[in-house]
Amino acid sequence: MASSNKKKILNDPVYGFITIPTELLFDLVEHPYFQRLRRIKQLGLSEYVYPGALHTRFHHALGAMHLMGQAMQTLQSKGHRISDAECEAAQIAILLHDIGHGPFSHVLECCLLDSVHHEVISLMLMHELNQQFNGGLALAIRMFEGTYERPFFHQLISSQLDMDRMDYLNRDGYYTGVAEGAIGAERIIKMLDLVDDQLVVEAKGILSVENFLNARRLMYWQVYLHKTSICCESMLVQILRRARFLIRQGDFEPVYAPETFKLFLRESITLTDFRTNRTYLDAFTKLDDFDVWSCIKQWAIHPDPVLSTLCQMLLDRKLFKIMLSTEPFAGELLQELENQLRQTGLSDDVLSYFLVEGQATNAAYLPSGDRIAIKLKSGDVIDIADASDLSNIQVLTNIVRRYYVCWAKGISLRQLVRL
Amino acid sequence: MASSNKKKILNDPVYGFITIPTELLFDLVEHPYFQRLRRIKQLGLSEYVYPGALHTRFHHALGAMHLMGQAMQTLQSKGHRISDAECEAAQIAILLHDIGHGPFSHVLECCLLDSVHHEVISLMLMHELNQQFNGGLALAIRMFEGTYERPFFHQLISSQLDMDRMDYLNRDGYYTGVAEGAIGAERIIKMLDLVDDQLVVEAKGILSVENFLNARRLMYWQVYLHKTSICCESMLVQILRRARFLIRQGDFEPVYAPETFKLFLRESITLTDFRTNRTYLDAFTKLDDFDVWSCIKQWAIHPDPVLSTLCQMLLDRKLFKIMLSTEPFAGELLQELENQLRQTGLSDDVLSYFLVEGQATNAAYLPSGDRIAIKLKSGDVIDIADASDLSNIQVLTNIVRRYYVCWAKGISLRQLVRL
Amino acid sequence: MASSNKKKILNDPVYGFITIPTELLFDLVEHPYFQRLRRIKQLGLSEYVYPGALHTRFHHALGAMHLMGQAMQTLQSKGHRISDAECEAAQIAILLHDIGHGPFSHVLECCLLDSVHHEVISLMLMHELNQQFNGGLALAIRMFEGTYERPFFHQLISSQLDMDRMDYLNRDGYYTGVAEGAIGAERIIKMLDLVDDQLVVEAKGILSVENFLNARRLMYWQVYLHKTSICCESMLVQILRRARFLIRQGDFEPVYAPETFKLFLRESITLTDFRTNRTYLDAFTKLDDFDVWSCIKQWAIHPDPVLSTLCQMLLDRKLFKIMLSTEPFAGELLQELENQLRQTGLSDDVLSYFLVEGQATNAAYLPSGDRIAIKLKSGDVIDIADASDLSNIQVLTNIVRRYYVCWAKGISLRQLVRL
Amino acid sequence: MASSNKKKILNDPVYGFITIPTELLFDLVEHPYFQRLRRIKQLGLSEYVYPGALHTRFHHALGAMHLMGQAMQTLQSKGHRISDAECEAAQIAILLHDIGHGPFSHVLECCLLDSVHHEVISLMLMHELNQQFNGGLALAIRMFEGTYERPFFHQLISSQLDMDRMDYLNRDGYYTGVAEGAIGAERIIKMLDLVDDQLVVEAKGILSVENFLNARRLMYWQVYLHKTSICCESMLVQILRRARFLIRQGDFEPVYAPETFKLFLRESITLTDFRTNRTYLDAFTKLDDFDVWSCIKQWAIHPDPVLSTLCQMLLDRKLFKIMLSTEPFAGELLQELENQLRQTGLSDDVLSYFLVEGQATNAAYLPSGDRIAIKLKSGDVIDIADASDLSNIQVLTNIVRRYYVCWAKGISLRQLVRL
Repeated sequence: MASSNKKKILNDPVYGFITIPTELLFDLVEHPYFQRLRRIKQLGLSEYVYPGALHTRFHHALGAMHLMGQAMQTLQSKGHRISDAECEAAQIAILLHDIGHGPFSHVLECCLLDSVHHEVISLMLMHELNQQFNGGLALAIRMFEGTYERPFFHQLISSQLDMDRMDYLNRDGYYTGVAEGAIGAERIIKMLDLVDDQLVVEAKGILSVENFLNARRLMYWQVYLHKTSICCESMLVQILRRARFLIRQGDFEPVYAPETFKLFLRESITLTDFRTNRTYLDAFTKLDDFDVWSCIKQWAIHPDPVLSTLCQMLLDRKLFKIMLSTEPFAGELLQELENQLRQTGLSDDVLSYFLVEGQATNAAYLPSGDRIAIKLKSGDVIDIADASDLSNIQVLTNIVRRYYVCWAKGISLRQLVRL
Repeated sequence: MASSNKKKILNDPVYGFITIPTELLFDLVEHPYFQRLRRIKQLGLSEYVYPGALHTRFHHALGAMHLMGQAMQTLQSKGHRISDAECEAAQIAILLHDIGHGPFSHVLECCLLDSVHHEVISLMLMHELNQQFNGGLALAIRMFEGTYERPFFHQLISSQLDMDRMDYLNRDGYYTGVAEGAIGAERIIKMLDLVDDQLVVEAKGILSVENFLNARRLMYWQVYLHKTSICCESMLVQILRRARFLIRQGDFEPVYAPETFKLFLRESITLTDFRTNRTYLDAFTKLDDFDVWSCIKQWAIHPDPVLSTLCQMLLDRKLFKIMLSTEPFAGELLQELENQLRQTGLSDDVLSYFLVEGQATNAAYLPSGDRIAIKLKSGDVIDIADASDLSNIQVLTNIVRRYYVCWAKGISLRQLVRL
Repeated sequence: MASSNKKKILNDPVYGFITIPTELLFDLVEHPYFQRLRRIKQLGLSEYVYPGALHTRFHHALGAMHLMGQAMQTLQSKGHRISDAECEAAQIAILLHDIGHGPFSHVLECCLLDSVHHEVISLMLMHELNQQFNGGLALAIRMFEGTYERPFFHQLISSQLDMDRMDYLNRDGYYTGVAEGAIGAERIIKMLDLVDDQLVVEAKGILSVENFLNARRLMYWQVYLHKTSICCESMLVQILRRARFLIRQGDFEPVYAPETFKLFLRESITLTDFRTNRTYLDAFTKLDDFDVWSCIKQWAIHPDPVLSTLCQMLLDRKLFKIMLSTEPFAGELLQELENQLRQTGLSDDVLSYFLVEGQATNAAYLPSGDRIAIKLKSGDVIDIADASDLSNIQVLTNIVRRYYVCWAKGISLRQLVRL
Repeated sequence: MASSNKKKILNDPVYGFITIPTELLFDLVEHPYFQRLRRIKQLGLSEYVYPGALHTRFHHALGAMHLMGQAMQTLQSKGHRISDAECEAAQIAILLHDIGHGPFSHVLECCLLDSVHHEVISLMLMHELNQQFNGGLALAIRMFEGTYERPFFHQLISSQLDMDRMDYLNRDGYYTGVAEGAIGAERIIKMLDLVDDQLVVEAKGILSVENFLNARRLMYWQVYLHKTSICCESMLVQILRRARFLIRQGDFEPVYAPETFKLFLRESITLTDFRTNRTYLDAFTKLDDFDVWSCIKQWAIHPDPVLSTLCQMLLDRKLFKIMLSTEPFAGELLQELENQLRQTGLSDDVLSYFLVEGQATNAAYLPSGDRIAIKLKSGDVIDIADASDLSNIQVLTNIVRRYYVCWAKGISLRQLVRL
């Protein structure tokens, strides 16, 4: 039996208190893999726009676990049989769903781990933990993978209405101060039900679901894809690109990095590498925001002017300018920006570090095609798009694309002369 | 005239919005000295107790500036003449009041900067900025020092009821989730008034002031002096002690640290050094939490078992045990704990890194003797202790002392064998 | 000059504090016409669904005045010249915009004041007050009517984005507990600007405006047109119909009502009556919720079984059943319900009091065709429907219609036998 | 078994949702005795100071029931056996603890029901309901009376830390907007435990309990005993006194009142009357705020100038002046005030309606001598006064007395000439 002194209560500004309900969950929270999430911010560089947005993946994962507990209670109170083991497994799965995130996850995945998605790493780490805990995570893994026979568990872990989204919208809204992002998670959860072990929402919850979809859409543009965040992330991408270039080039000036991080800068690591060589996964479980920031600080005094200029700019929040458009930018515009940069003394081989084109989409925040099912009073189950008189339900889940270009306006010549 | 595009609005979950009202204030916020505060957490290691407590001194300073603006408006609306220059100076002074803080300020001041208080450094940096901004901070400095002829400005910057405390109680309460710490800052500010240019509170604000004092007392014990925070800070002190020992000893195994941080580990820097050698202040303005954390991460794999064990324990949140008492601990108890540690294989010369005695007091949070003045309807001004029927007003400002001992219980032998 | 002791601060849970900024505004708040609004709930019978929804039109009007003050400040800070007189007039106009509301306004307008809209009465009362205050409301009246040469004042008083809506969505959300109704009023107001003295929203405020429109739509269905509210209002309409019938019939059993209220029950009052006979307006300014409730309580023991049954049902919250549909109900269904009621002993002449058909639309909450103008960074002004990628902006302002039928299911026979 | 469609969820702005957990509780909520509480405001005339303070005893009782449910869960989770029947009984008892309140309870008890306390009536009504529900409330009644063998149930219903106080401090704080009144009810409840079936608080909850006591003290003075509330209540007392005088005098001008209310105005009803004559209890269960307000409105046009003047003043919020003091007022002062009133034309026999002396104490809000027990980590149980280093714990529960005098300053002569 779980000894009660392993039950722990945490303060959470968003929900008041979070209780860790079982001994195994407590041990997982205490595990270094999970403690590492304390050192990884949920919103990466968004703090440059929203100074309060400093919350971590650690706190988010605990919040999602808390909501999962509420969902279990709600479904049980509606007469659905859910065993203690299932409850715990569902809470384990959601607690660990993000354990494979690295620091500045989108940036890292984009430029260092091109072919390895964080969910794959989460699963690897769950299997690793499953061994350490003598198979105690087996059911949680099946739920996470979607192979457990009762589909609603997977839906609560990963779908349009999963506990992940419920928590992060609330939490991101709280810490950024974008009050419109707050959703009535409690209300939606109370409206959850099951039909044939599929997750549905009672009809009277339609408006809350619509509100949730709206809040999510607002948060994309107001927070997740805020143009200043895009700008900061672009700068970080260039920094990592340059550092990698210098390291691989084997410059006479060494480029500082903690060994575990250097591994990822030096090598091109594929999913197969991850699977076959234990070194990579071990190194990954050591990575956190501090590795990246300590490098940025050291690189700001590196002799390479590209690297040091970019790092110092980011540290001092001297950001690139950015333009957004729904259309791709005309070649002439980019040409003109390049010319401006050349006039500040930049040579052509480094231009690309100071002028970045790209696209931002909300795709990362959208689920893969699953529907939200509404249970009518008649008992019938229909798609929310058919249940709502709001014609734009579909719109809310569309992928929207923004083209952007950002560049170092008025960059200081002196520093670059040394190129 | 200030160009309007230098006015900026920031989201703040605590107050909704913070407006930066003048061009000079905006430029100060943009200055690298101030941007550094983004990288220094307000509550140091309290996140180990309250996972949401990740807010920075940057956000706090902006919040205090915001409240100062409200105080200015209130006093003006009560007929007191305050010029635009005075308003701006007051906001500058409070914005910069904490600019001399280093990372983990209490720890650092205690073990690396023994004789240099953060307020002294704040003042040095304000003088430095005053030069860079052609004397634009002269009035702010006089207010900060308390040499300006209208005393209430200094009182709003540093006294029992200053805007510093108003903001940090609210903000710390918000981010920790300790709702009882929230104070009616808006209400108290609306009750502020002046008598002979001294700050007073209208009689009808007595209850709010009492509540503020109570909230402050609660926050000491619930947050600032929480036993787990004390424990984490003790561990960090030992880590820095050990790193310093190894560096000064000149061990054959180099001890990593960014150069600016190493300076403070290697040398014993006095106030005179700070004043006479520009190097120290320059280095100080580069220090932040990331320097400390990146060292902890590197040191966790250093060959010295004391250093690496302590660092890995902190990273993985394997904390010392702690006991608190209102009385000093008996020699026998400490003897017994030492014996326990010896049995785990610790040699006597390193015992002191794993068994720490100390005292915690709320003194750091208490003002130096100034009173809170209440203005009665009759116009008379009296001390709040005389105005309140609450006999314990004085109690609330007493210095309370707790003795503690913390130690590494059940520390792993294997790692230490190498000693 | 306004003496400062007429400035008053009120506690408001929604905004913290509301300051009444001028002497004239203070005197208007103190006037019996305005104090009457203390006795008129903002949401009528919605408290039967949301027990916290007890806030009054008094509080709402003060809140709207507060937001108007913020809007004035924002516009001034963006360089637009607004005189003190204009500020005060705008605040007066919004303070008094609802002063012509009677108790249970929608019910009363529907069954007692068929041809007299509350805005017409508001205007009459503003003219009356203008006389009492020696012309001090002249400018406010022009703004209210839309005849003042600077159109944005009227837009702030009555348009898609007026301070009325801003306050009531926030306030209704707060008191009902429907958190999704809360809008970032502060944020939207900060984004307001003027182009050619027309109200516009800065482009970066688009998302907040969308969120506002969504919140409004949610509040219609979740609160304003909640089926139980419709049901309660239908019952109240029947009660008033029956009372009027008995009074006009001149039954031997007198029907209690305070004299001022009886006037409206006894007579059919047209707009012309209001305009030509001072008695009606005077009587109207005495009416409040207490008149209606005291009658319901007295009528619950009146010998007429229809009246007493309906009143007792409402008092004890034994409500009609209700069905909603997007289509008109089939004749057969209504026939069947009638038959059911006949079987409980109801005679045909009173059936219509216990079986009510009707339509609910959100029309009352929608503005009359004015657009929301967005000011692009380029300076161009376009309609939000063109500025947003959300295709359903128009949808959000569509008029939606629901058909309903409600009836007294299982009504007690005994009481009605006496018919 | 309880059918699930009798389970109901209510929106509550304070706690989010309140679930009514059993069929019997649902039926009690639906009962006219309980529905009557919808028409009785929790804070009487405090809305004249805090315009948002319109919440009812209905909502408060539901909130207290909700907190009781949380307390039951907490105690069960700590291993204490509590049966479903006990849970339900505890929730019934707290739901009905205030059912004996009349409108403007303190006023009514003071001038119409001198010898009958609301708790006695609550108990009578609970016995009545027990009969109607076939003995289903028997256990709840024993808990309420304190005769059940497990004392903690009574302590949760009525003691220093009962769910009544927990809810009303939170709720009154929410609706008045006095944020300092908000207490961490959730936190305190999580700290509750039992020792020998006595309610105790875990040692780590001491600070929260202190905060709770402080908040309570603040609310007395800021809200419950606010001088303007005292003033309004005094006026209402005089109104009722005068109406009673006129009714008993049998004036030729009838004094309107609903029959049930008139009973209490006409007669002097003792506890024995209540117990022996069913009429009084029946009448009492019909009384609500609307009865009082409808009389005030009618009496405002009654020919008696004392009655009509007082009523019109209250309706229009033309309030008495008030002075407070910690000492009784000197005879000369009262003499002078009397003289002032005489000069406005008041005859001596009516002076006492316009000049009122009295005392306000917090006694009504203080519990009768029971202690708050703290359970130390050692397992020992001590009084909080011994556990806290805050010397004034006792002070917080002292009875404080304020003397007041209030009078009709500048009362209009014309109206009174008719005397």
